[in-house]
Amino acid sequence: MNLLYLLRRARDQFGDNIAVLDGDRPATWREFYGRVERSAAFLRSAGLESGDRMAVLLSNSPEYLELYYATAMAGIIIVPLNNRWSVDDCAFAIADSGTKSLVVDDRFLGAGRGIVDRVASLNLIFAGGDECPAGMTSYRAGLEAAVPTSEAWPEPKPDDLLGIFYTSGTTGGPKGAMLTHRNICSNAILCYASGMRVGARYLHGAPMFHLADGAATHVATMTGAAHAFLPTFDPGAYLAAVERHRATSSVLVPTMINMIVNHPAIDSTDLSSLERILYGASPIPIPLLQLAMKKLGCEFQQAYGMTETSPVQTLLQPEEHCFENLDQEFAPVRSAGRPILGMEIRVVDMQDREVPAGQAGEIIARGDNVMKGYWNRPAINQEVLRGGWMHTGDLGAFDERGFLYVLDRKKDMIKSGGENVFSPEVESAIVSHEDVLEAAVIGVPHERWGETIRAVVVLRPGVVRTEAEIIGYCRSRMTHFKCPTSIVFVDALPKGGTGKVQKVALRKLYGNASVG
Amino acid sequence: MNLLYLLRRARDQFGDNIAVLDGDRPATWREFYGRVERSAAFLRSAGLESGDRMAVLLSNSPEYLELYYATAMAGIIIVPLNNRWSVDDCAFAIADSGTKSLVVDDRFLGAGRGIVDRVASLNLIFAGGDECPAGMTSYRAGLEAAVPTSEAWPEPKPDDLLGIFYTSGTTGGPKGAMLTHRNICSNAILCYASGMRVGARYLHGAPMFHLADGAATHVATMTGAAHAFLPTFDPGAYLAAVERHRATSSVLVPTMINMIVNHPAIDSTDLSSLERILYGASPIPIPLLQLAMKKLGCEFQQAYGMTETSPVQTLLQPEEHCFENLDQEFAPVRSAGRPILGMEIRVVDMQDREVPAGQAGEIIARGDNVMKGYWNRPAINQEVLRGGWMHTGDLGAFDERGFLYVLDRKKDMIKSGGENVFSPEVESAIVSHEDVLEAAVIGVPHERWGETIRAVVVLRPGVVRTEAEIIGYCRSRMTHFKCPTSIVFVDALPKGGTGKVQKVALRKLYGNASVG
Repeated sequence: MNLLYLLRRARDQFGDNIAVLDGDRPATWREFYGRVERSAAFLRSAGLESGDRMAVLLSNSPEYLELYYATAMAGIIIVPLNNRWSVDDCAFAIADSGTKSLVVDDRFLGAGRGIVDRVASLNLIFAGGDECPAGMTSYRAGLEAAVPTSEAWPEPKPDDLLGIFYTSGTTGGPKGAMLTHRNICSNAILCYASGMRVGARYLHGAPMFHLADGAATHVATMTGAAHAFLPTFDPGAYLAAVERHRATSSVLVPTMINMIVNHPAIDSTDLSSLERILYGASPIPIPLLQLAMKKLGCEFQQAYGMTETSPVQTLLQPEEHCFENLDQEFAPVRSAGRPILGMEIRVVDMQDREVPAGQAGEIIARGDNVMKGYWNRPAINQEVLRGGWMHTGDLGAFDERGFLYVLDRKKDMIKSGGENVFSPEVESAIVSHEDVLEAAVIGVPHERWGETIRAVVVLRPGVVRTEAEIIGYCRSRMTHFKCPTSIVFVDALPKGGTGKVQKVALRKLYGNASVG
Repeated sequence: MNLLYLLRRARDQFGDNIAVLDGDRPATWREFYGRVERSAAFLRSAGLESGDRMAVLLSNSPEYLELYYATAMAGIIIVPLNNRWSVDDCAFAIADSGTKSLVVDDRFLGAGRGIVDRVASLNLIFAGGDECPAGMTSYRAGLEAAVPTSEAWPEPKPDDLLGIFYTSGTTGGPKGAMLTHRNICSNAILCYASGMRVGARYLHGAPMFHLADGAATHVATMTGAAHAFLPTFDPGAYLAAVERHRATSSVLVPTMINMIVNHPAIDSTDLSSLERILYGASPIPIPLLQLAMKKLGCEFQQAYGMTETSPVQTLLQPEEHCFENLDQEFAPVRSAGRPILGMEIRVVDMQDREVPAGQAGEIIARGDNVMKGYWNRPAINQEVLRGGWMHTGDLGAFDERGFLYVLDRKKDMIKSGGENVFSPEVESAIVSHEDVLEAAVIGVPHERWGETIRAVVVLRPGVVRTEAEIIGYCRSRMTHFKCPTSIVFVDALPKGGTGKVQKVALRKLYGNASVG
């Protein structure tokens, strides 16, 4: 079981299907396989050897997909870099992983040069559309000239490293999750076994460096679907791409969904090709989910997971998106679904003892999806992988039927007056206000309560609301101790590469008791 | 990933579903899990320790299922013995595997005593319905008294040995295939991912010691189906059990299917509950398949595999059972289907080089289903697992669409006048004669042709046919060199535990040129 197996399966069983929708040059799976062989040969000729690390800083593109498979074929370990990271963060990941070469395109040319200024030994490969700048290796020219020689290379073993995927990480700074061939392939196969489907044309809407999109990428390949690419996320461009490619599915994160359903073109775009939206990576407010299901007019399936679990742990099935009985403590649509086949999930207390259904604790996971560890972080690995379980750092609870409710990041939970407050619940209540576009809550120090809740709120354009109005709205709908005691109005929330709100940045900016 | 995970999944997600249909004492998955815990505690109290081997010689029964999971829980390695084996063969397997205890029921009490005569150190556990004979340990009494203590036992690791499954084997005598937790669990998950379904009530019709039935056993558990048991195969009893239990599916081998569709009760039995028959283990003649589909009135799905691959390698889907274009060289319904997800199958020449589609060669397989090796047979393991691939000893060919055609066992192929004759093709032609119930062909030495083809034929009761008539029938339908030159009429064919014709025995009985 390795990534090449999935690619060969596509070639052998779906050879004449379109693999890549790329403007005027679509390629079948047979042709795409040939391209991957040439790409692998080129990488080897460019001085990369088996076990070397190669970083990728690219927009979504056929080249990105190609490089995923070409590195696997050549035994090179891929290091996908976060598009939103600063040059310093990228340079850190490159130095930390001992990366030898970096692939950039036009968009990231400046970033690439900045990184080389910091890591002088780095070789730059240019895979953009423009002419290759002096001093860089041209991917396109190299591909043209390459002669496939893959037959002679050793086949990757299941437990060989496939890639190092850096996560911003709330503990101990950025860390590289080491994922093996077995990890990535198991994720694809187990997700498929558990009902993940992408249809005939999969549109990469979320960034390809992130495993949210990666979760479905190899399911698409495995089932012979065509890949279409949105270079960088923009709601208008996404809508246009769905219509142009007749896309059947995408992975989207709640922030993207929010932008799409609020985009003026939503009602005039032909979205009839959409069969299923996979969503996840952060909690979604119920009203947004309902609106999105109506506006996009297709099935929704939720995935919960993290880079460290390659990434999927649970799936909430389309037929489980039922909005009745929302007043009950455990309504499946508010859950992250149930564990995928082959992944074991438990909720445990501080001593790693399983807690009964209905009780909250830390979510831990075991199975073939779980990473080998963080690159070069033995102490943290011992801690997070203790007992053979990935300790996710997420708080959650199971209900009696095995649905998992993700309550909060352990670090983001607010403790106010002895009560545990899970931030997504509060955020969900705030954004249910018709004038609120987005909101995030943090705890700020409080003399008497330990912490008190502060909401950072983005209002819809042109609207004016007061702090008292928002607090009053919350108090009319929630237990008092869960309501914010202060509101900061801002134009935008700080976000990571997949649009997830960065609570660390938020706390830095607005976490001081005297602000607001 | 281990077998307990699948069991716990059934308990957690389907706790109130019926697990075992056992006369007046059906058990839910929650109750069954409790029984398994007590069974594991009993086995430990009976002196079996982690890593010990324990053999099972039982009819199909709830106890058999229970022991599969209880041994896994207690870290004991199960050794399922072939019900049809002689006492000597059983004693060989027990001595070869260093088995400490043997579980028997009423039916195998005599065999158990015979085995103890040969392996004196063996402890006998009696799991029958009658009173426990003196000198044996009573399973029932032990289960009553047992107090579950499983929590304290170490969890099996994926690559830990789960069981040793003896195969009669055409090379080097009987050998024990070592299957790990990962092997058996992967088979269940990958089969399910590839569309294997058993419905709500799975009837164990084929013997439970064999992985033909085992292929679906854990799919049934994993999906919370109820298990029903036919103690020992008999076509009339099978039909009655389907009606009584409203069974939705079974694994059957072609010989069993032949007996069922020829049974007088077939037309008067209510088979409307049947949703799918999984069949495999030996080639099925097309007319029998068509008749069976009509008589049983449900979907048919074919599995191809072997004990050494835990067992499934390919599946022919229900919708691929299409009987048009049968005159073409490659008609999918004559194939074994396509590789299941996660299993890599190749067809190679004598030098292990892949051959193109359409060409015959040996079938080799790689993936998480492939056994760890044969117990205590390092030299054979090096040979059959060379390069990390299981060399199946089966000859086959792929077509352009990835369907795998299994032509013959390498050892059973007949070489006549420089031509390769695949025995199933010849057998299929002979049994298409309306008066033939069963047939098997072997090669017999011939001065001029090297080998010539002999058919051993069972006619339908009361029918008389001459050698010349059968040979003439074949010549009217097949290329001359593929036709038998001699016929031996017999009352029955020698068969193994799953009803597979034993070619070795056949050659011993009828393989001499002077016979017939």
